[in-house]
Order: sequence, then C-alpha cells, then structure tokens
Amino acid sequence: MSTFAPPVQRLVTELSKLPGVGNRTAQRLAFHILRASNEDALGLADAIREVKERIGLCEICFNLADEPRCRICQDERRDRGLICVVEEPGDVIPIERTHEYHGVYHVLGGALSPIDGIEPEDLKIEQLYARVTAGEPTVREVVLATNPTTTGEATALHIAGELRSRAPSLTVSRLASGLPVGADLEYADEVTLGKALTGRRSL
Amino acid sequence: MSTFAPPVQRLVTELSKLPGVGNRTAQRLAFHILRASNEDALGLADAIREVKERIGLCEICFNLADEPRCRICQDERRDRGLICVVEEPGDVIPIERTHEYHGVYHVLGGALSPIDGIEPEDLKIEQLYARVTAGEPTVREVVLATNPTTTGEATALHIAGELRSRAPSLTVSRLASGLPVGADLEYADEVTLGKALTGRRSL
Repeated sequence: MSTFAPPVQRLVTELSKLPGVGNRTAQRLAFHILRASNEDALGLADAIREVKERIGLCEICFNLADEPRCRICQDERRDRGLICVVEEPGDVIPIERTHEYHGVYHVLGGALSPIDGIEPEDLKIEQLYARVTAGEPTVREVVLATNPTTTGEATALHIAGELRSRAPSLTVSRLASGLPVGADLEYADEVTLGKALTGRRSL
Repeated sequence: MSTFAPPVQRLVTELSKLPGVGNRTAQRLAFHILRASNEDALGLADAIREVKERIGLCEICFNLADEPRCRICQDERRDRGLICVVEEPGDVIPIERTHEYHGVYHVLGGALSPIDGIEPEDLKIEQLYARVTAGEPTVREVVLATNPTTTGEATALHIAGELRSRAPSLTVSRLASGLPVGADLEYADEVTLGKALTGRRSL
C-alpha cells in the first residue's frame, strides 16, 4: 500500500518527469506545494497551462512567441540584414544578455544528429534558406551560433556549405571558439586551447 | 525589454518559488515544459490543482488525506494503542518504509521554536493529549519521532513532560540516537558518537 493519497502520488509522478528531478526531489517539491498557499500553488498550475495554450513559434524566426511574431522580429530597431542561427529558443537568452547583438534570430529547433535520426528536414533549415534568398529585406550576414559540440559544429558546417552555394554574396560567420574570459591556461583543455591558437587575433 | 514572452516569464517566476530552484533552473524547467507534450505539461498543472483541491488533513492524526481520515487511520490492521508523533507529513514516509512500525501516527505540523514564534498552540499538541486521554482506544505507548535537532528535541521533551503528568501509566519513548548503519567511527561527529555510547545496548 502506498502511504501517499492518490492525488499526492500523482503529483510526485508528474514532478519527477521534470529534468533533474528524481523521486526524492519530487516528494520534497510536492510537500512544498502542499504547504504553499493556494495562490502560489495554483499560480504555478495556471502558468503551466497558460504557457502551453498561448506560446507558439514565431512565424519568421521560430523563437517562442505569444503572438504570430516574436518580440524581436516585431522590434523595428533590429537589423534584419543580420541573422543569428541558434539551436534552441533558450539559446537566444544568453546572446541577448550580452547586449552586443542587434540583429534578428533563426531558431533551428535542434541540431543535426543522424545517429538520433535528426536530419535537415526535421529542423527549420529550409526556412532559413528561404529567408536568406527572399531578398526582402536583404540579408548581409548569417552568424552560425550553434553549440560548439559535435552536432552543433556539424550543423554549422552543413548550413554554411548550403548557404555558400545558394547565396554566394552572403557573409557566413561562426562564433569564435577560444578561452573563456577569466580562464586559466593551466586548466584549459587542449582542444579549446588549440582553437584559441588557430583563431588568434593581431593586436 | 525582457526577451521572454510574458507567459514564459510568468512560468519562470512561478517555478523559481519552488525550494532549491533558482532563476537558471527555473528557465531550464520552463523550456522543458514548453518542449514537453501537452499531455505531460497539463498533467503536471492538473496534478497541482488536484492536490490543492482534494488533499486536506486527517481528522485523527493530521497526516495528509484525500478523505476525512488518512489511509493509515482507516487501516483496521494498525495498532491504535501505539502512536508515533512526527513533525511533518513527509516524516511518515521514511518510517513506513522501514516496515517496522505497525501503529498509527500523529503529525504535529512542525516543531516548537519560540525564536520563530512557534508555540505549543500552533501545533497539533493539544489534539495529541486528547487522543491519549480519551481512553478509547486505549493508548499504551507514544513514540516521539521528532527530528534529532534542537527544535525537535525541545518538542519531544515538552510533550514527554506533559504526557507524563496527564497520563502517568503511558509509556513515552524516543527514537534512538546513534551511529547510522554503514557509518565509519572515524568520521562520526562527537555528539552522535556520545549518544551512541550513552545509548549502548548489551548483547
């Protein structure tokens, strides 16, 4: 016999589906929710429901949006000639946080990974080519900001090759790889240090 | 300008109210919920709502219950002459997991802590005395299973004193303190080791 009443057990089961949440953490969260005020607990339930009902993908860049277009694609001050390509909607946030980027985005929805069965047609790659070749507005540069991982690199190389043949005048760039700011040479892994050397800049 | 659409920002805010969930984890969980199937995400929202609507406290022992009485108080095979006193509903689970205990429970709803303004009347202590002195069923023993912390010990001592004066024939016991099974003497703290020595048992 389970010691939990069925609704409590159900909440524990649902919570343990979240990433990084095991059975023990799920129990702790469930007891927190039971102790919390009705307002706080139902606020969370409503926020989940609202997000699933109201959030879709931007029709231009496939970032998350609660309207047909996301806030960045709606923003008139953004440079539409510069497109930054990222894997997931969550990747837009760290780039925005730098305050260094004033172009628009294109969210692929993942990275190419033939081993997991993720092929170009499973991502929003064709839609990127369409944006670039539409010519209105004219796209000058595409920054490939996929993750510096095997699948992210493969995706960047694949897209760069295609863009070069479809839009020869377009500049295609990739985020720099190198030492993170504040890092220590002594602890840098050799691949990162190799990239930092290859990509060295004259002062 | 926030990069998140308002419903996403609201979900992040609500998630970061959970214990052990900071802003970054809340973002990660929010993006997981956005990616999850509608079924999984709304399942979580419904489970939270259901638990707040259907779960109350058992009228006898103040454990969580989806009926007037909890499953343990409803269970005819439980020994009603033996009451285990715990601080929180979550404390019932580890005791049940031992399969060593066949009595019933009494959940105080916290521990005495004058510094935080938690006095005897804020806990279900008077209700425990009422259960013990009602005489039907006859209570033979009360096991004080509050946490081995300052507040838990103080609560146990307070209740033990009161029970002794109100029901002189009642046995009042406390969980043993000592070395956890599998522990190493070398790493035991001196308070625990002291308790293990004082509480030594003849073989």
